[in-house]
Amino acid sequence: MRIEAISVIPQVFEAYLDASIMGRAQRAGVFSFTAYDLREWTHDRHRTVDDAPFGGGQGMLMKPEPIFEAVEDVSARAEEAPHVVFFSPCGTPFTQQVASRLAQQKRLLFVCGRYEGMDERCYQLADDIISLGDYVLTGGELAALAVADAVVRLLPGALGDDMSAVDESFSDGLLEYEQYTRPADFRGMKVPDVLLSGDHGAVDLWRRQSSLERTARLRPDLLEHVDLTPSEREFVERLAHTETSGDE
Amino acid sequence: MRIEAISVIPQVFEAYLDASIMGRAQRAGVFSFTAYDLREWTHDRHRTVDDAPFGGGQGMLMKPEPIFEAVEDVSARAEEAPHVVFFSPCGTPFTQQVASRLAQQKRLLFVCGRYEGMDERCYQLADDIISLGDYVLTGGELAALAVADAVVRLLPGALGDDMSAVDESFSDGLLEYEQYTRPADFRGMKVPDVLLSGDHGAVDLWRRQSSLERTARLRPDLLEHVDLTPSEREFVERLAHTETSGDE
Repeated sequence: MRIEAISVIPQVFEAYLDASIMGRAQRAGVFSFTAYDLREWTHDRHRTVDDAPFGGGQGMLMKPEPIFEAVEDVSARAEEAPHVVFFSPCGTPFTQQVASRLAQQKRLLFVCGRYEGMDERCYQLADDIISLGDYVLTGGELAALAVADAVVRLLPGALGDDMSAVDESFSDGLLEYEQYTRPADFRGMKVPDVLLSGDHGAVDLWRRQSSLERTARLRPDLLEHVDLTPSEREFVERLAHTETSGDE
Repeated sequence: MRIEAISVIPQVFEAYLDASIMGRAQRAGVFSFTAYDLREWTHDRHRTVDDAPFGGGQGMLMKPEPIFEAVEDVSARAEEAPHVVFFSPCGTPFTQQVASRLAQQKRLLFVCGRYEGMDERCYQLADDIISLGDYVLTGGELAALAVADAVVRLLPGALGDDMSAVDESFSDGLLEYEQYTRPADFRGMKVPDVLLSGDHGAVDLWRRQSSLERTARLRPDLLEHVDLTPSEREFVERLAHTETSGDE
């Protein structure tokens, strides 16, 4: 996969890409990454990328001209047209499903805004407008990094072990089960016996129930979209009943 | 505010903090930031921070000992006990409200996991477990940066203009209105006339309606939690009716 980003602070990508698991994936040829400085597509002495909003108000907006020119110019640098992604709190909420969808693309181009926002006309260039969540960041760079990170780790070979992206939160619509490593007793906090039993069937059942219990307790909204067996459904309903009884 | 982070790749924070708006805020004394290398709290030659999961399975987990020692040691480095934040897809979904709440703290300590996850016992150290969204990242560092970014920009003086964090997405529970800057006509795409009119009352009304329209179209779930005037409620209902009619 080819990933590119346009930003006024293109230098922020390198440190993360080098140090994180993405660095290994990049060196292994799983994907390539290039960040471009938006100011390359300005034509004034001050390399201006922002301007005051029409209608008044505080803060500055990203101007349309450099963004259009940058996206058009970068797009033309390879035969495959990029899937162009903008970031905005008004976008589609980013989820693991969106990450899986983007992982199918051959070429992604992330366009990162800064300041108070972007001239609305810029979004016409977007194939996707993504929101990282219901919060406001000072720019799109962290959103681009998070989306790149979530997408790249789904690519074959990225984690150095093709299976490790399968058995985790959201892969089956549930939160991940509780996990433990050594020591079995840490300051009196003990690992559940079943995990030390060597009984693989019992471990699998415990993990599934841990996953169901956590999801029911912390994110019951996720359960609405999950296919459960009748006995799993019964387990979840029994949990809900126990909790209600406990409150009485 | 004092912000600290514990991570196995502490070098990833600096580039973003220097280059972004956060760099300015840091230099202006709005907050301080220190990243610590978790491996400082290991005691073996290989500086091991991870181990295989009990019960089998792929990937490695963060061991409890270095995390406990690091959090305890860093916490003791200042009089004010830190508000300790862990990151996990199983955590509380991060929102602008959570950002506002964290912005009240004097000291935040972010603990960033890597690999397949963390020994469950580590979370006992957490005052907050935060999820950036329903997706899986390769580690907690981008979550820590995003939370730091969203929190710091709310601190007085961070944006160099105390008002600019007020008039934006989620501050009133709605998505932000459409924004435009020069040129008024860009490749035939024109800025709405009202924004060029100089009529402040008309601009304010248009912006409020733009905000309502966008929220109703893209994120109707947000409208459930917003106080609207009767005429605004009517405007939103008329929009819904128009859309339904359009589909017929």
